[in-house]
Amino acid sequence: MSVTVIEYDRGVGRWEADARGRLEEAALALYGERGFELTTVAEIAERAGLTERTFFRYFADKREVLFWGAARLQESLVSAVVGAADSAAPIDAVMAALEAAGAVFQENREHSVRRQAVIAANAELRERELIKLAKLASALAGALHRRGVGEPTASLASEAGITVFRIAFERWINDTSGRDLPQHIRESFDELKTVTAGT
Amino acid sequence: MSVTVIEYDRGVGRWEADARGRLEEAALALYGERGFELTTVAEIAERAGLTERTFFRYFADKREVLFWGAARLQESLVSAVVGAADSAAPIDAVMAALEAAGAVFQENREHSVRRQAVIAANAELRERELIKLAKLASALAGALHRRGVGEPTASLASEAGITVFRIAFERWINDTSGRDLPQHIRESFDELKTVTAGT
Repeated sequence: MSVTVIEYDRGVGRWEADARGRLEEAALALYGERGFELTTVAEIAERAGLTERTFFRYFADKREVLFWGAARLQESLVSAVVGAADSAAPIDAVMAALEAAGAVFQENREHSVRRQAVIAANAELRERELIKLAKLASALAGALHRRGVGEPTASLASEAGITVFRIAFERWINDTSGRDLPQHIRESFDELKTVTAGT
Repeated sequence: MSVTVIEYDRGVGRWEADARGRLEEAALALYGERGFELTTVAEIAERAGLTERTFFRYFADKREVLFWGAARLQESLVSAVVGAADSAAPIDAVMAALEAAGAVFQENREHSVRRQAVIAANAELRERELIKLAKLASALAGALHRRGVGEPTASLASEAGITVFRIAFERWINDTSGRDLPQHIRESFDELKTVTAGT
């Protein structure tokens, strides 16, 4: 497959994107087969048909293969919140951003399913994922501040949004009904409204 | 002060509680003075007038001095949720448990203020605190399951509760108006209801 890619585009950008993708694919396969702990960078590079040196041009270590997308996710969430209609309530700006991100994840559910299985099997990775989500919540609160939203509203709206996203994501990963991630996000958000309303 | 304690009660239990308290006090003082990273167990023991061996009888390492209370907090939250009135909605059972815990923290606000300053100054400790709170949320969800609450309600109610608690706790730590922690918890919860209601 990578050969085909090289044939139709020899530009460095495309080639680099492909090297990253091949390394990521090889890493996910190996983490799934023998576990994250027992996989080495040398093995990932070999499986991808690349050198270790190339691996380290894209990733600081084998853990970063699973987390490099977080920065891009954060950027897209923040710009969606900052760019939401002036009339949008804080929680609605946050939820719209998360649904849009959910639609991107939906394009490659298989990748998310495989990644999630690797994360779930390793305590350190679960902690890292938790910290990633906390940083996303903090970035979302920052985006709300830029919209003039004060505290504690900004933190509550972004934390509630990330909670909904995390729970919806888990349900989507385990879903057999075929509902998509944006749909799960909307449902979980409605559920949160019901839950917080109490008795 | 410890001498007085020994005089009125020579029982091992009381003495041990005092050793733990002295070590904790010495650790908090040193972490505040020179930072968590630069403080050694030897220095903590010396400041407390105890040996390193005694330190390790109570704490696995210098970090545990800051986190040993989490297990007790978790137990009290779980038993409060499990024991709540059958008629209590999931979120109300969770919030009542958190308010009761808040009243305990209120008894020694100074301790919380000092501990929080140490945590805030160190990235690794902030991550550990985050993981502690995630575990609390998970334990609360487990307690709701025991009440027959299903998913995603149990997870949403407990995550929402922990979010409210965390934000209320921060506001309480920085509060100059004298409002107590249970009051901050109630206010933040009301704010969450308003936030999730959206436009």
